[in-house]
Amino acid sequence: MNLDVALCPAELAGVDLTGRAAVVIDVLRATTTVTAALESGAAAVIPHATLDECRGHARREPGVLLGGERGGIKPADFDLGNSPGEYTPEKVGGKRIAFSTTNGTRALLACRGAESVLLGCLNNRAATAERLADLEADTLLVCSAKQGRPNLEDTLCAGLLVERLRELVVGMQVTDRARLSLELAHALPPTPDNLARSDHGRLMLELGLRSDIQRCAELDVRSTVGRWTGGEIII
Amino acid sequence: MNLDVALCPAELAGVDLTGRAAVVIDVLRATTTVTAALESGAAAVIPHATLDECRGHARREPGVLLGGERGGIKPADFDLGNSPGEYTPEKVGGKRIAFSTTNGTRALLACRGAESVLLGCLNNRAATAERLADLEADTLLVCSAKQGRPNLEDTLCAGLLVERLRELVVGMQVTDRARLSLELAHALPPTPDNLARSDHGRLMLELGLRSDIQRCAELDVRSTVGRWTGGEIII
Repeated sequence: MNLDVALCPAELAGVDLTGRAAVVIDVLRATTTVTAALESGAAAVIPHATLDECRGHARREPGVLLGGERGGIKPADFDLGNSPGEYTPEKVGGKRIAFSTTNGTRALLACRGAESVLLGCLNNRAATAERLADLEADTLLVCSAKQGRPNLEDTLCAGLLVERLRELVVGMQVTDRARLSLELAHALPPTPDNLARSDHGRLMLELGLRSDIQRCAELDVRSTVGRWTGGEIII
Repeated sequence: MNLDVALCPAELAGVDLTGRAAVVIDVLRATTTVTAALESGAAAVIPHATLDECRGHARREPGVLLGGERGGIKPADFDLGNSPGEYTPEKVGGKRIAFSTTNGTRALLACRGAESVLLGCLNNRAATAERLADLEADTLLVCSAKQGRPNLEDTLCAGLLVERLRELVVGMQVTDRARLSLELAHALPPTPDNLARSDHGRLMLELGLRSDIQRCAELDVRSTVGRWTGGEIII
């Protein structure tokens, strides 16, 4: 098993993902939020590139909820923003959610062509690693990054996934990028304080989202792992 | 002064470099070799995208030397490969060198539009930082990466440049990528052993280039800093 990390989606131009497993990581906050939604019993999360595509989806499918953000903020006509805490069983249980965020969707699209696409975050780090170990495929961890540039929080999460996978899979081959993420996660663990000092963490503090950072930093607290298949994210 | 790092050239698509200083880093080995050539008295190094462009240059300009590599190996009809040790005063003093390597040229081209473009490596780390501090411009350190994907050695060199610049410039603002490189350089210093364990280092060991790795790992041993201007690299 070969383990690689893409620190930003642009790296994947021209990379053949056939037969590989991919994990999309957007710690602050898309993959954390989608994981929360599925663990709260949402039937499916359907990612869209734009807010307008979400609205079009809602017109075609009555009952679908609208979720997501732009610039970290919930659009006024949406049911839900991008805070994992909003996605409670009462609000999303049994529901389908049309969802769009700034960076997460781009990373998902970059993983087209992979055999399996999972959604990883710190909350479900151990569960994601176990799922990958079961798949026994060459694996690529894809950081969503921020406006196309590598960020701290996704790189740290990738590093902790590398850490757990090395414990689970004997003789795994790792690339420079996997080693780099792992070393970094050991040097600068993704505590709430360290996430708050990242570029995106500082923006979230300005938006009053400190409690979201704390929730997104919780390690191994969820057993749910979303899987992107047929255009929808399901368990 | 704002300090950013691009871990691979693809990140720079759409980034405006106007008024900024950029440093191209290709530790193994292009920027180390060009620095050695200039310190040995070469008049200029002229980078080309392809080996054939180098050959065309030599036909137009008698006396120009041909230098570079593909897959780490010197083309049979070239005067010099990509080992810094080859570029002695006896061989290159006063000469102009048409030069092409696999990854370094792409990174240089990605820096088009910057106000100043310098060539950094571990050998001239401190000298490069001092030059940047004098420029007092917002600065971007650009890792050449390997086939478009971030690598260990360039990220570590960027981190040590960040370290030295923070000592020289008070109140410098750093991005996630600058912090990430710095933390990584502290966790995994670019010793010959660590460079030899990188993806590209392992390839170089296979090619019998251990002494090149040792030379490229030497920190702050050169005072020469190449500058890319008008299509040529000069001091």
